[in-house]
Amino acid sequence: MTDGRIRQADGFEALETPCLLLDSDRLKANIAGMRAHLDRLGVSLRPHLKTAKSLDVARIAMVGTSGPATVSTLREAEYFAEGGVRDLIYAVGIAPQKLDRVGAIRRRWGTDLAIVLDSVEQAEAVAGWSRRAGDTLPVLIEVDADGHRSGVDPRDADRLVAIGRVLAAGATLRGVLLHAGDSYGLSDPAALKAAAEAERQAALAAAAILREAGLPCPVVSVGSTPTARYADNLDGITEVRAGVFMIGDLFQAGIGSCTIDDIALSVLTTVIGHQRDKGWIITDAGWMALSRDRGTARQAVDQGYGVACDGAGQPYPDLIVRDANQEHGILALRRGSTATLPDLPVGARLRILPNHACATGAQHDRYHVITGQTLTGAVWPRINGW
Amino acid sequence: MTDGRIRQADGFEALETPCLLLDSDRLKANIAGMRAHLDRLGVSLRPHLKTAKSLDVARIAMVGTSGPATVSTLREAEYFAEGGVRDLIYAVGIAPQKLDRVGAIRRRWGTDLAIVLDSVEQAEAVAGWSRRAGDTLPVLIEVDADGHRSGVDPRDADRLVAIGRVLAAGATLRGVLLHAGDSYGLSDPAALKAAAEAERQAALAAAAILREAGLPCPVVSVGSTPTARYADNLDGITEVRAGVFMIGDLFQAGIGSCTIDDIALSVLTTVIGHQRDKGWIITDAGWMALSRDRGTARQAVDQGYGVACDGAGQPYPDLIVRDANQEHGILALRRGSTATLPDLPVGARLRILPNHACATGAQHDRYHVITGQTLTGAVWPRINGW
Repeated sequence: MTDGRIRQADGFEALETPCLLLDSDRLKANIAGMRAHLDRLGVSLRPHLKTAKSLDVARIAMVGTSGPATVSTLREAEYFAEGGVRDLIYAVGIAPQKLDRVGAIRRRWGTDLAIVLDSVEQAEAVAGWSRRAGDTLPVLIEVDADGHRSGVDPRDADRLVAIGRVLAAGATLRGVLLHAGDSYGLSDPAALKAAAEAERQAALAAAAILREAGLPCPVVSVGSTPTARYADNLDGITEVRAGVFMIGDLFQAGIGSCTIDDIALSVLTTVIGHQRDKGWIITDAGWMALSRDRGTARQAVDQGYGVACDGAGQPYPDLIVRDANQEHGILALRRGSTATLPDLPVGARLRILPNHACATGAQHDRYHVITGQTLTGAVWPRINGW
Repeated sequence: MTDGRIRQADGFEALETPCLLLDSDRLKANIAGMRAHLDRLGVSLRPHLKTAKSLDVARIAMVGTSGPATVSTLREAEYFAEGGVRDLIYAVGIAPQKLDRVGAIRRRWGTDLAIVLDSVEQAEAVAGWSRRAGDTLPVLIEVDADGHRSGVDPRDADRLVAIGRVLAAGATLRGVLLHAGDSYGLSDPAALKAAAEAERQAALAAAAILREAGLPCPVVSVGSTPTARYADNLDGITEVRAGVFMIGDLFQAGIGSCTIDDIALSVLTTVIGHQRDKGWIITDAGWMALSRDRGTARQAVDQGYGVACDGAGQPYPDLIVRDANQEHGILALRRGSTATLPDLPVGARLRILPNHACATGAQHDRYHVITGQTLTGAVWPRINGW
């Protein structure tokens, strides 16, 4: 290995590949940047832990060791409650079968775990459960910011008030929660600002309906990484939930929520072969290590299964993971590129920037922590499953 | 829940969702069918364990508890060796850094773990390692059946013989290995038969080159689920590797390698909401539970993120997972369908057939074993990682 750039990966030689590298300097900078931005807007951050799924990351992202934070599964809620987090929202619509487990988390760790719903039938199940269990569950009504998936239409005052009244009679109505998921399909800054403002307006409209009906609405919670990044007015909002901003990925870079240089996560991989007549470099990071996520296929720049970088995290010009099998990555230059394929012999190490940090992270059970191109020796476990 | 079909899922009510269901009756039938087919062709089966990643499944798929079998990671090799498997091929091109771990597996469990390579540089690394370690590693030369990914062109006699000579001077040259991965893009039976025959011819050509050069080639190993299923002549082949056939999935059904009714794997999920004006049913099985695999998007019938079935595994007419977020599945009728959306209230359970068993399985750490629509109570662990 005579190429200076390849030598830069030698610091990672002790690691088995494929594995996850997490740059803690970039992670901390991303978190500090979002916190400063939200501080300026006078709103607090309730980080979403679904991307990192790591207590070590959570402790950097949260304002204190006890939260607040957001989770996407009850498995995460248990893991973070066990780790000392005392203020959580499980931000996926509740199924009645999950209420006993919610109650168990609240009792066992004393964690204020709130749930989310968007129908009268769920509210009745929750109110009934609360009365039977003697635990008035805190509930946020999910409001639909943009037609993305779940939530009550913020113009549907009847349904909002009906849900609110059922909750107020048995559980604790804590407020409203929105997620402007359609912002993931945008990339124009003006459109992203408009999406953030639309999310805020929908939240305020729903909160006003509840308050005018005499119902409580102390919490007005919004969030998505793109709208959090582009919001310039969050008056009336009490908290922002976002997760992927901590780590960043190629998809967020395609939106403009971060730059390539902000991405804190990469997959370390080893060259295992070549098809030189085709210009292919074969590595041991296939879709099992990178995930099947091809989110950038819908963006202006399709990054394949990821961007190939040297050990320092510097992208090789136009070198992407053009295709992937389960345990094989096929690296090649972008179609039409005039760049030269780097000379990466069998055994050379390189790093792949992921399309989607949530999906790539989930293929692994730990982060090897780096700063720049130095392995710190720290290994941060991460969890999966439900 | 008044609909008889919905009631059929009640047997699974004790399970937390989302989770994996594995129908052991279908699994056993799929394995018996493949074994009978290969018996008729006079060739043995070396099941690929990368799909199931479960010792319980392996013991059904293998002819005996000690193998033979195929793995896609050294983590699998360790897990199955620990579980008593003594004859394994690690069927991904070897990196020199992995040889110490290969040697450790061979020593610790006495497992005959063979490796795969396709270059002189790898062969030199392996021969050198073998001489230093005093362990003549068994090696198969990977041969390219169809331009799919790795392997030596079977017409490249110089390279085949050069690799063979380096190996024969230090390691153990055991034979050739091919994988006709391009067969995954086919669906016409005649084309699939032709792909199987082309894979066989490439294998025989490479074996003949080695033998004519005075090199040994006792093993001639081919395999992919589609070519294994459609082969009608395997003369000269000593073993077939295949994995996904055991479980089946929508992608294999699209090829014609199995039928929908053969699919042994499904994801149990719970309804968590509706957007009734859009015809959406929201469930708790998003892409985290189903995987991001959208393989059927390239086939004649796009199955979205999966086909929705009742508790008995019977598909609801035209109901698929049209979109998915991390922990939300969005079910809707296929575009243009005239079917009626089933009435599935919040809390109803249903089962999702996966696009790709290898990818969906990897999102989970266990199988809940069922027979038909009955939960057996057995839980089979499965592994992930490297």
